[in-house]
Amino acid sequence: MEKPLVGIVLGSDSDLPVMEEAARILDDFGVPYEMTIASAHRSPDLAAEYARTAEERGLKLLIAGAGMAAHLPGVLAAYTCLPVIGVPLQGGALNGVDALYSIVQMPPGVPVAAVAINGARNAALLAVQILGLGEPLLRERFRTYKEGLVESVARKAEKLKERM
Amino acid sequence: MEKPLVGIVLGSDSDLPVMEEAARILDDFGVPYEMTIASAHRSPDLAAEYARTAEERGLKLLIAGAGMAAHLPGVLAAYTCLPVIGVPLQGGALNGVDALYSIVQMPPGVPVAAVAINGARNAALLAVQILGLGEPLLRERFRTYKEGLVESVARKAEKLKERM
Amino acid sequence: MEKPLVGIVLGSDSDLPVMEEAARILDDFGVPYEMTIASAHRSPDLAAEYARTAEERGLKLLIAGAGMAAHLPGVLAAYTCLPVIGVPLQGGALNGVDALYSIVQMPPGVPVAAVAINGARNAALLAVQILGLGEPLLRERFRTYKEGLVESVARKAEKLKERM
Amino acid sequence: MEKPLVGIVLGSDSDLPVMEEAARILDDFGVPYEMTIASAHRSPDLAAEYARTAEERGLKLLIAGAGMAAHLPGVLAAYTCLPVIGVPLQGGALNGVDALYSIVQMPPGVPVAAVAINGARNAALLAVQILGLGEPLLRERFRTYKEGLVESVARKAEKLKERM
Amino acid sequence: MEKPLVGIVLGSDSDLPVMEEAARILDDFGVPYEMTIASAHRSPDLAAEYARTAEERGLKLLIAGAGMAAHLPGVLAAYTCLPVIGVPLQGGALNGVDALYSIVQMPPGVPVAAVAINGARNAALLAVQILGLGEPLLRERFRTYKEGLVESVARKAEKLKERM
Amino acid sequence: MEKPLVGIVLGSDSDLPVMEEAARILDDFGVPYEMTIASAHRSPDLAAEYARTAEERGLKLLIAGAGMAAHLPGVLAAYTCLPVIGVPLQGGALNGVDALYSIVQMPPGVPVAAVAINGARNAALLAVQILGLGEPLLRERFRTYKEGLVESVARKAEKLKERM
Amino acid sequence: MEKPLVGIVLGSDSDLPVMEEAARILDDFGVPYEMTIASAHRSPDLAAEYARTAEERGLKLLIAGAGMAAHLPGVLAAYTCLPVIGVPLQGGALNGVDALYSIVQMPPGVPVAAVAINGARNAALLAVQILGLGEPLLRERFRTYKEGLVESVARKAEKLKERM
Amino acid sequence: MEKPLVGIVLGSDSDLPVMEEAARILDDFGVPYEMTIASAHRSPDLAAEYARTAEERGLKLLIAGAGMAAHLPGVLAAYTCLPVIGVPLQGGALNGVDALYSIVQMPPGVPVAAVAINGARNAALLAVQILGLGEPLLRERFRTYKEGLVESVARKAEKLKERM
Repeated sequence: MEKPLVGIVLGSDSDLPVMEEAARILDDFGVPYEMTIASAHRSPDLAAEYARTAEERGLKLLIAGAGMAAHLPGVLAAYTCLPVIGVPLQGGALNGVDALYSIVQMPPGVPVAAVAINGARNAALLAVQILGLGEPLLRERFRTYKEGLVESVARKAEKLKERM
Repeated sequence: MEKPLVGIVLGSDSDLPVMEEAARILDDFGVPYEMTIASAHRSPDLAAEYARTAEERGLKLLIAGAGMAAHLPGVLAAYTCLPVIGVPLQGGALNGVDALYSIVQMPPGVPVAAVAINGARNAALLAVQILGLGEPLLRERFRTYKEGLVESVARKAEKLKERM
Repeated sequence: MEKPLVGIVLGSDSDLPVMEEAARILDDFGVPYEMTIASAHRSPDLAAEYARTAEERGLKLLIAGAGMAAHLPGVLAAYTCLPVIGVPLQGGALNGVDALYSIVQMPPGVPVAAVAINGARNAALLAVQILGLGEPLLRERFRTYKEGLVESVARKAEKLKERM
Repeated sequence: MEKPLVGIVLGSDSDLPVMEEAARILDDFGVPYEMTIASAHRSPDLAAEYARTAEERGLKLLIAGAGMAAHLPGVLAAYTCLPVIGVPLQGGALNGVDALYSIVQMPPGVPVAAVAINGARNAALLAVQILGLGEPLLRERFRTYKEGLVESVARKAEKLKERM
Repeated sequence: MEKPLVGIVLGSDSDLPVMEEAARILDDFGVPYEMTIASAHRSPDLAAEYARTAEERGLKLLIAGAGMAAHLPGVLAAYTCLPVIGVPLQGGALNGVDALYSIVQMPPGVPVAAVAINGARNAALLAVQILGLGEPLLRERFRTYKEGLVESVARKAEKLKERM
Repeated sequence: MEKPLVGIVLGSDSDLPVMEEAARILDDFGVPYEMTIASAHRSPDLAAEYARTAEERGLKLLIAGAGMAAHLPGVLAAYTCLPVIGVPLQGGALNGVDALYSIVQMPPGVPVAAVAINGARNAALLAVQILGLGEPLLRERFRTYKEGLVESVARKAEKLKERM
Repeated sequence: MEKPLVGIVLGSDSDLPVMEEAARILDDFGVPYEMTIASAHRSPDLAAEYARTAEERGLKLLIAGAGMAAHLPGVLAAYTCLPVIGVPLQGGALNGVDALYSIVQMPPGVPVAAVAINGARNAALLAVQILGLGEPLLRERFRTYKEGLVESVARKAEKLKERM
Repeated sequence: MEKPLVGIVLGSDSDLPVMEEAARILDDFGVPYEMTIASAHRSPDLAAEYARTAEERGLKLLIAGAGMAAHLPGVLAAYTCLPVIGVPLQGGALNGVDALYSIVQMPPGVPVAAVAINGARNAALLAVQILGLGEPLLRERFRTYKEGLVESVARKAEKLKERM
């Protein structure tokens, strides 16, 4: 079994259904990953420790999903030099706008790469693009995936044409 | 010199002009306090250490001001059992709405008491009310302050009447 | 039966399902409380009277939940020197943003401690933290609760690990 | 000197520059009014007393302007059967959206008639329309005013035409 | 049958379920009214004609409900000297915020009295308050209604107390 | 002098500085136009009459700019079969979001073509594109304009390169 | 079979249910159209090619619907001189506000005509109005349609009257 | 002179003052870069060509800044397999919220890494973190930078302490 390159961190186990989409993408691309739960607020030491040791444990980047006052990606970014991708999660009365602002509006000095609300799939694809910079094979797989997107759109366009 | 009861924490030294209003109120009420800077993102260990040791150093509560993705109050709350009052600070393109959402929308389990955007004065008054629960003298001062508010409004109403 | 220390005030009986979460937390921590309904708009004298007599009746703080133009927490705060915690309630076309703004944006002089939209649980936990300042036993219970949060996250992380 | 028919209430003396526009309109239409300051939060008893006695003192309606968590119009409405017109005032980090929501989103049972943010002039015009229902002379003046609006637009259109 | 004093105007027949609440309140207070449909956009002449002739037909005020780019209340106000109460209706992707802004943000010169999103009941109550200025009986009924609100809250508070 | 093909309508003369940009673009493209002021609220009959007669007077489309509760474009669209382009104007406490929603959220049946807040230039360019469908010369001019955009960007990129 | 005059472009096949309303309107008016799928992000070359060749293939205008970061209408507009109508589609956590802003806030130089969120019907009606400028028959049909709107409102008003 | 690894792309030359901060950071870290202007709307072929050839020209990632309907980062991402970092730029009536939504809400399949509004510095720091995954020296520099942040906060805290 390969050593994980990506750490997927969930603020809560209720975030699993969305964040699993990231895992599935990484599986598809053959990127080894680990997934854990570490709340920035309820278990701050776990979260800090996770981020602080991430690099020495061989991880290359972190993907963190959180809702509401979504501090998790920023807190992880505070403790690691690795790139951190933040996924704002839909939920609560503000429907994820709070999570989006809490993740994307990081102050200068400590960046987080934000994707769309519930954009776990894109978080994983971004991870693939980043890891691909150092792994030609992965880059090739991403290129194929990207070509597949074109074909899929073309096929759907074709199907729509037939239907009309 | 008395031992500080309130710790005022700034996310950045640029937050001083607003957060000094909290200090001034505490001065007015004779509440000893300390003020420091400890970014949740740029110096997470300082912030965590500050919160973790706050109670044993004799502090009773924390007031934290931060802008943008304002994680500071939530991060402090994660590391202490003391009440934490959060002041969202105006600034940046979103004008403090990001800070408000990042502070007030804390997930269940780790509360932060949010006041208005730039509401440093009310943060300090809330601290006075809380500390007053255990100190009759302080409670009395707050009552006097509150009566002063009524008189001040009445005086202004009088003045307006004369003007007309 | 102990004398209540916390007064939970509902703007309307339809707020009960959310506000009961605050009651449950106070029950868990053994904090005696009372719960009543007193609309700031439909029964202003009841609300004012409730707040005005709260301190002499031995209450230490108020938790008030309201939706839409949620004036209740601010109105109570106007009539008492006790700390008031405001819970903006989700509902109506604006989904609680109106209640949040009506509660958190209090003008200087009369603070309300706002928690998240529907954040009744955190309102109660904040009350426990505040009351704990004067009651070592309660403080100890909160510390235990906080440690329980860490353990609960750790357990869930463990479970997730096994699942993968 | 005529007895005032309209009570203009300001939440703070800083609201005067905007709220004076309402007074000026009432002057133009010859509607007697009084103007006072009575904060819903800093001087709740003054505000309540003002509203409670408004009808017996001969007032026909109230115009209340307030900013931020603008409870004043709603609090007045709670204590009087007279119609209350609320003017949300621009200011603070949220620029008056907080005041708008706090005024317009009144729960069923206690209406406030909201006008635009800083819409003090329209508040007064609305008062004139309402009072005009019982005073033919006032109604006539409003009709003349309304015709004047048409002429003013027509004149400006003429002027623009000449300029081109 | 009495001559209608209030004209309730719907922008579309789909607005009926909400706007009927206004009718019901007027029925309760014995205020004669008429109800019609007149879109500001689809049937502008009907809407203009309705407003233009409202006063001569004996109406005292108009209540208009509309959703999305809710121009109806403003358009009616443009054609009549009577007070116009606007009810922003929830619906569409913006959930009524568009309707609220379209109704409340009227430019100086042509006021509309806005109530809450879907606030048809309050629109009718406001109409009762306004009409009550000239009809002591109606004013008395409103006072009774208002006292009923207090009693209803008190009863509910009593019931809650028993339940605990 | 050519007969105007485009009618530019301003809700108020204060809208001139922004709306003149539309006029300037039409001048550049040699599209004859007229410009007038006709408030939907202050002079509804002027606005209605303008729109009702627009087609028979030879106009091909209307460009209307308005701020706040910006009903003008929708009101014009209600009275004409010509395409109406709406320009939401920045201003007031909501900074043009109210105008944008009032213009773009038109209900089914009566379309308005909305451009960006203060987007008067794009409104005119859209008019040129539409008129160009029937006038090859105009279409050619637009093509040249569009090529000019590319060149302008390329020139600026070149200049930036030299600077570095 | 007639050559299509309008190209309806969908960003994704999931947009079909809403965008079909545009097709249905064009069918009703006898305007020949084609409908295809061409994502601005997943198949950028298809989208660019489609727009680039639209004019030479005889199309007169494009209607593009897209959700979230809805770049499709703007990207098409970048590649064609034809007018482009953009339909922001409801969906995702932001409910279409993101799509609205992405479509309507086009920078100067490249206009898109935005309609309401999910306003596919109005997009088609706008297309009919634009094409009608060059086709008297179509203009006539639109006039009839518009008269039908009046009648439909009048009929519904009649029905409501009977019901009361 | 080293071959550029990062391509900074501006939607307009007016974006230079903000985007230069990204360049300055890359200079500080010794990361070779190039900077150009390529509007997604005014010069779509330039933008597409730039992105399409970025990888073969040796670039490792792109940083794109744009305001309003900020399509540039998404359009570049559509044409390249390299990671794209998007910087929403403040400006216009919506103050950058439009740009934020247009950049961060990318649909599944084509990710863009969004940073804060005007967050050009963090965009560059994120680029350094990503490039550092393959260059130990760069990673070391980032670690030093991160330690410098801590020291800078500590120094400011010290200074504040002295001042008090």
